[in-house]
Amino acid sequence: MTLDEALYQLKDVQQKIYALQYAGSAISLDAVTVAPRDTAEGRSLAQGILSGYLYPLISGEETGKLLDFLAEHKDELDPLRARQAEELKRQYDELHRMPEQEYVEYSMLLNDAQTVWHRAKEEDDYAAFAPYLSRIIEANRKQAAYIDEKKAPYDALLGQYERDLTMEQLDGFFSELRQTIVPLLEKIREKGQVVDDSFLRQDFPIEKQRELSDYLMALLGIDRAHCTIGETEHPFTMNFTKNDVRITTKYDRGNFISSMYSVIHESGHALYELGVGDEYQYTVLSGGVSMGIHESQSRFFENMLGRSEAFIRLIFPKLKELFPKQLAGVSARDLYLAVNKSEPSLIRTEADELTYCLHIMVRYEIEKKMIAGEASVQELPALWNQKMKEYLGVEAPNDREGVLQDSHWSGGAIGYFPSYALGSAYAAQFMHRMEQDLPVYDLVARGDFRKINAWLDEHIHRYGCFYPPAELFKRCCGEEFDPRYYMDYLKKKYGEIYRLS
Amino acid sequence: MTLDEALYQLKDVQQKIYALQYAGSAISLDAVTVAPRDTAEGRSLAQGILSGYLYPLISGEETGKLLDFLAEHKDELDPLRARQAEELKRQYDELHRMPEQEYVEYSMLLNDAQTVWHRAKEEDDYAAFAPYLSRIIEANRKQAAYIDEKKAPYDALLGQYERDLTMEQLDGFFSELRQTIVPLLEKIREKGQVVDDSFLRQDFPIEKQRELSDYLMALLGIDRAHCTIGETEHPFTMNFTKNDVRITTKYDRGNFISSMYSVIHESGHALYELGVGDEYQYTVLSGGVSMGIHESQSRFFENMLGRSEAFIRLIFPKLKELFPKQLAGVSARDLYLAVNKSEPSLIRTEADELTYCLHIMVRYEIEKKMIAGEASVQELPALWNQKMKEYLGVEAPNDREGVLQDSHWSGGAIGYFPSYALGSAYAAQFMHRMEQDLPVYDLVARGDFRKINAWLDEHIHRYGCFYPPAELFKRCCGEEFDPRYYMDYLKKKYGEIYRLS
Repeated sequence: MTLDEALYQLKDVQQKIYALQYAGSAISLDAVTVAPRDTAEGRSLAQGILSGYLYPLISGEETGKLLDFLAEHKDELDPLRARQAEELKRQYDELHRMPEQEYVEYSMLLNDAQTVWHRAKEEDDYAAFAPYLSRIIEANRKQAAYIDEKKAPYDALLGQYERDLTMEQLDGFFSELRQTIVPLLEKIREKGQVVDDSFLRQDFPIEKQRELSDYLMALLGIDRAHCTIGETEHPFTMNFTKNDVRITTKYDRGNFISSMYSVIHESGHALYELGVGDEYQYTVLSGGVSMGIHESQSRFFENMLGRSEAFIRLIFPKLKELFPKQLAGVSARDLYLAVNKSEPSLIRTEADELTYCLHIMVRYEIEKKMIAGEASVQELPALWNQKMKEYLGVEAPNDREGVLQDSHWSGGAIGYFPSYALGSAYAAQFMHRMEQDLPVYDLVARGDFRKINAWLDEHIHRYGCFYPPAELFKRCCGEEFDPRYYMDYLKKKYGEIYRLS
Repeated sequence: MTLDEALYQLKDVQQKIYALQYAGSAISLDAVTVAPRDTAEGRSLAQGILSGYLYPLISGEETGKLLDFLAEHKDELDPLRARQAEELKRQYDELHRMPEQEYVEYSMLLNDAQTVWHRAKEEDDYAAFAPYLSRIIEANRKQAAYIDEKKAPYDALLGQYERDLTMEQLDGFFSELRQTIVPLLEKIREKGQVVDDSFLRQDFPIEKQRELSDYLMALLGIDRAHCTIGETEHPFTMNFTKNDVRITTKYDRGNFISSMYSVIHESGHALYELGVGDEYQYTVLSGGVSMGIHESQSRFFENMLGRSEAFIRLIFPKLKELFPKQLAGVSARDLYLAVNKSEPSLIRTEADELTYCLHIMVRYEIEKKMIAGEASVQELPALWNQKMKEYLGVEAPNDREGVLQDSHWSGGAIGYFPSYALGSAYAAQFMHRMEQDLPVYDLVARGDFRKINAWLDEHIHRYGCFYPPAELFKRCCGEEFDPRYYMDYLKKKYGEIYRLS
């Protein structure tokens, strides 16, 4: 093999991976948006066969040889190709110990599981989902060993979403966080000062909410020629290419805030994908670099910006225009307090910023036990309810609002949830750093998001997967990740809202 | 190779073809429904690469060897496998002379062309589409030679949509048809009896039209757990599997009839796909057998049933319920006359039954010249207008309502249009045959479509591609195709409507 041949092959294999992942995305998106209900079988077979094409591209012998060759000629590669080879090697290492048959079967299992979960949630029927979850957990345990048999299985899984993340780090992080959040919640409870958010629970016509989505996406600077919005049971962002991103939301007629913050959250994800440099298109360096960094962007928009008083004041006239009767007599400050009302609740995606991470901790504790084999699938609903009681003091009246509420496990994502908490904490540190360069909240007050987006592009988005997450983080912030920024942010924000001493 | 190995390979290659076609469908469907506007580049690359996987499955050396082996062992195959091998061989023969690179480039060209056509139509900008159409024509000419260089190129193209169909047959068919239609239209004009259809042009809220679509699909017996409806610029039916079919429509707020007949037409296609036998799933025998037979099903539902007086009387109460003000003072007979009003017009998909085939003839004449190299792409708009004037006596005020109106050419389908006329004529003969077994219009009047669907299933749908179209036709009707049934139908129907002597 000559170097030229190797470089041609490197490009070719990445483009093929791209095309097969593109197909997988189109099929998955279709499945959760417009596909008829009873169509899982045909989809599952198709996805299985396509994954049989994808598998050898990432982890086959030929790719292995190519990567060996490129490693030997590392010094002759330009930085872009060198990083492509490194990233492909990382994916190769994660996958190549897994037998192809298992890979294909897992892909088919996830297809089925998502359909089953969807219906199980609708019908509050955990028993229907349990056998699928059981197989997913089993597969994840095996995969953990394929990824790195020296690591604790759950550490290996965590690393898929945030490189090198460990339970040890998370235990420390969550423990610190809890020591901040729990006393704050207690002070709020003691204070007994009740925020009125009853006006949020009225009839908000879906058509008006759709208009609000369009308004928010435009305001945040999303180019609609490259990003559409759809409607699904569980909001998400999907990127086909850096020029083709989709977000979804779920409208609740009785509560416009739910979709509003989904749209802002997913817009944060979308802006990341839309901002990735052109030079990474159709390579393994395209897209966001890790789920932790990805969630930092979504949570930055959702919380740091979207739940700020400046933002609420900015969009308030539009909200009044869309919902004049519903918001009669409500002030911008009232709305700001309402969207930040801290109150233990059942549903993660609806939780306020302060209790949110407690929801994550519940899932984290359960996942640890799940993977360690310390809790059977049958025990999960009870364990869920017990942990919710312990961390949040609330009890789910059913599994739909309990253990079945999130789509992640049905999609095979065990070890993903901590990214949300980590992302929230990253976001606070990014904000701290951004404020040294920009009058962020003045810009928000003026509705000028261009400079904010340009800053995020320059420091984070445009790099795609070029820098590993920790390096990207350090280059951006000038220091390593430090959760204290997040805790300071929470203390300050909730101290002001609830006038705590 | 042993026979067992060959049979395993036959199954495997068909499943892989299935999976790649499934992916292609998902991507195409996404492209015309929810994808953001400026996303053609990434889609085109992905489709090109996927077609590079599909090509060798259908026409590669290994498939060639397999087919040779199976041909040698023909007598040892069960009928199902024998037909699979035959059908795959037919596809192999059509494709294998075409170089892979051309196949991939053509797939990418069509992706781009569809995006460009869509915008060109919107903006009435034929010049933007012309270079793409030029390349598509060039590619079709080459393909015609790959398919069968002994045939006239346009004959080879026609055969892709209706096996062995020739210009000679079509010239005869269209000439007979014209000799029936033109005098009928003249008589109608002479009669001077004007049907009032002004009530069709009012404001019909889209939400109510959506309700009508749901009602019609339920009425016609479409199982919604296996078939959804979407909205696109150009209505179509797409089948992923026999259990997963999608139809689309286009709502015009100023005219509910337009979408209503699209829904009935596409439902006819969908019922065909949904009725194909389980034994053909994931093989090359799945789906409808030819476009002529497919259009016979759609046109059967749209015209033979949907534009019958019995059907109009059946759905009239529902229409009155949905559009009480708009249909105030209108009787079922008025509506029946209005939806059958014969009047030369610009848009094929909105044309009445009598003038419809003239629209097809215009396209047929143009395609013949296009492929024979007797008309340049630049000349097509003028040629279109000239032929429309000649056949229908109308002139398109712009290319949007002229040469740009249909999506077919942008999708590479040259030689497809005649299927519509042929399908209409097939439908009349099927109806003649069905009426010997069933009191069809009595069943329609009672809203009982089960027996009609069962008849179509038994004689047509369930066979998928098992019988070649001509054989299927003869098995169903007991005789060969004879266009006189269609002409008799038109004469009788329009004679009654316009009280012609």
